[in-house]
Amino acid sequence: MNQQNILFTNNTAQAIDTAINNIRPNGIFVLTDKNTAVDVWPQVKAESTMMSEATLITINPGDTNKDLKSATLIWENLINGGATRHSAMICLGGGMITDIGGFTASTFKRGIKFINMPTTLLSAVDAAVGGKTGINFNGLKNEIGVFSPASHVIISTRFFNTLQKRELLSGYAEMLKHGLIDSAATFHKLIDSDPLEIDAGHMLELLKASVEIKRRIVNDDPYEQGIRRALNLGHTAGHALESLAMKKGKPVPHGYAVAWGCIIELILSHTHCGFPTNTLRNAAQYIFSHYGTPDINCSDYQDLLEFMHHDKKNISSECINFTMLSNVGRINIDRTATESEIKTALDIFRDLAGA
Amino acid sequence: MNQQNILFTNNTAQAIDTAINNIRPNGIFVLTDKNTAVDVWPQVKAESTMMSEATLITINPGDTNKDLKSATLIWENLINGGATRHSAMICLGGGMITDIGGFTASTFKRGIKFINMPTTLLSAVDAAVGGKTGINFNGLKNEIGVFSPASHVIISTRFFNTLQKRELLSGYAEMLKHGLIDSAATFHKLIDSDPLEIDAGHMLELLKASVEIKRRIVNDDPYEQGIRRALNLGHTAGHALESLAMKKGKPVPHGYAVAWGCIIELILSHTHCGFPTNTLRNAAQYIFSHYGTPDINCSDYQDLLEFMHHDKKNISSECINFTMLSNVGRINIDRTATESEIKTALDIFRDLAGA
Repeated sequence: MNQQNILFTNNTAQAIDTAINNIRPNGIFVLTDKNTAVDVWPQVKAESTMMSEATLITINPGDTNKDLKSATLIWENLINGGATRHSAMICLGGGMITDIGGFTASTFKRGIKFINMPTTLLSAVDAAVGGKTGINFNGLKNEIGVFSPASHVIISTRFFNTLQKRELLSGYAEMLKHGLIDSAATFHKLIDSDPLEIDAGHMLELLKASVEIKRRIVNDDPYEQGIRRALNLGHTAGHALESLAMKKGKPVPHGYAVAWGCIIELILSHTHCGFPTNTLRNAAQYIFSHYGTPDINCSDYQDLLEFMHHDKKNISSECINFTMLSNVGRINIDRTATESEIKTALDIFRDLAGA
Repeated sequence: MNQQNILFTNNTAQAIDTAINNIRPNGIFVLTDKNTAVDVWPQVKAESTMMSEATLITINPGDTNKDLKSATLIWENLINGGATRHSAMICLGGGMITDIGGFTASTFKRGIKFINMPTTLLSAVDAAVGGKTGINFNGLKNEIGVFSPASHVIISTRFFNTLQKRELLSGYAEMLKHGLIDSAATFHKLIDSDPLEIDAGHMLELLKASVEIKRRIVNDDPYEQGIRRALNLGHTAGHALESLAMKKGKPVPHGYAVAWGCIIELILSHTHCGFPTNTLRNAAQYIFSHYGTPDINCSDYQDLLEFMHHDKKNISSECINFTMLSNVGRINIDRTATESEIKTALDIFRDLAGA
């Protein structure tokens, strides 16, 4: 997989011009959602001649629209706009946009180049970097997709001031996850801060450190054959919580689900790999106090297990695959837990949440 | 792009077992169309224990079904059959099956491995080899797809005895194209034979030589940045003829369209690069006598030009891109022709056809 050029800057207009001069496409298409088209696009467009001449494609916002219907709309817009194999797409938005944008670009005429310009903390730290693209299908998250890196990722904090608190928190959850798999120093730096109180300059610095953790791991293992699975910490349980919430008609932000998923998987890490109790309690306390608690009870367990079984990371139907930690920064990929062990972990999770 | 293992053999059961032992998937799905499910699948299934335990997915046959609807059906069947990221798909059929099978496999959970087992001459010599996958979209051929090589391609002539004459001729057209871009010796060996009279042993030998020409070019340039475009000879005009025929409700076999497309592009090669007249006449004579002539007149020119403009290979809207030859084996990629030059070539083509 080609390496991505990641540009950390708040001068996004200059970064876009650099990226486009690098690619030299014969047509530029900007993909965004209907909210970002109002909140962010006008300023991006006004700042760059190249952007002002681009063709805009907008889709409905939200993860429920990250589907084949929106993908079809994007492909149709590319065709109607005269896109060729040498056109490029700029994905301007959150993870929903960079996921579906990367997927539709990578499959249009067998692949056109794309640039990710995340507008949320979550997409900056997670979806926009590392080459995973995809759409939801049949109620399963990211079930259809490809590994395909953006040619450039432009990361800034300048758009974050329009974010809601829960969007900032959602992104911060992935940074916590990076901290957990990296080192005690990184992790403590994160839980000693309140994501809602960090100024923009300090956030760009924390963000850069966090993205570098991800980049390092992805470069070592782009197609997730091994160590990249470390990045799945919190995601097997997290995706299940997210799917359950969607099924109940009460969707929760991805990052909240991942934060809770981290606790569930740290509980499994404790029982399977000896992850230390006090660190587990610290993490749980921080997460519950910032993210609240999910709405689950024992009658949801079977649904949660079903969702975990459908997870892409699973290779057999008997056990469920998890990334576990024997301590902060000590990664154990490809560990498994039985349904009964997971149910016990969910019991402990609910106890901790209620405590 | 990973190189493909290409196995030339009529002992297909042993080849399948070898390929599967190499991949070691945790589940095997066989994709085929409803005709091949009756004509070929029973014998393949009977000969191999691994095949007899595989899950069969069948879709409606024909290029008109190489669409998002069939892709959706395949993805749903993979999910319902419990496919994981470590499952594998065997694409058993013609180019329609290897194209849509390769695409759906490469996008399912961001990619599972697949094995191509072409059952037609056309797919053996063309679609099954080289990593191009895709589906038609909005009336445009292969508009959505990815570059993704099959891990193994099992090439045999054993299924060809159930092929209709026009299917054999269709495949032979791609072999003629390979001859034209390779050498006078290869090309003459082909036009000195009648595809309908060749015995199975000799056909496997010709086929192997032809696939090796394609493999060599694809290995040099997997993503079609340069010399791989040589393989597009005949395809810009050919795809347009194919799309036109489909629009008129009288579809023609892909290979027929490519054979006719080769003549049109050799005419352009003559006017633009000095391709010799006598070789052009020989090729035209062979092709018209074996493939007949397409049903086009001047009122179709505008439609044909429109289809050519939408071709993936085009990068600008003024000229149309072609691979041309200055002689057999002398390749000139990225040549362009204007609409007026193409119309003249179509006039000459119709003259030659009527002669």
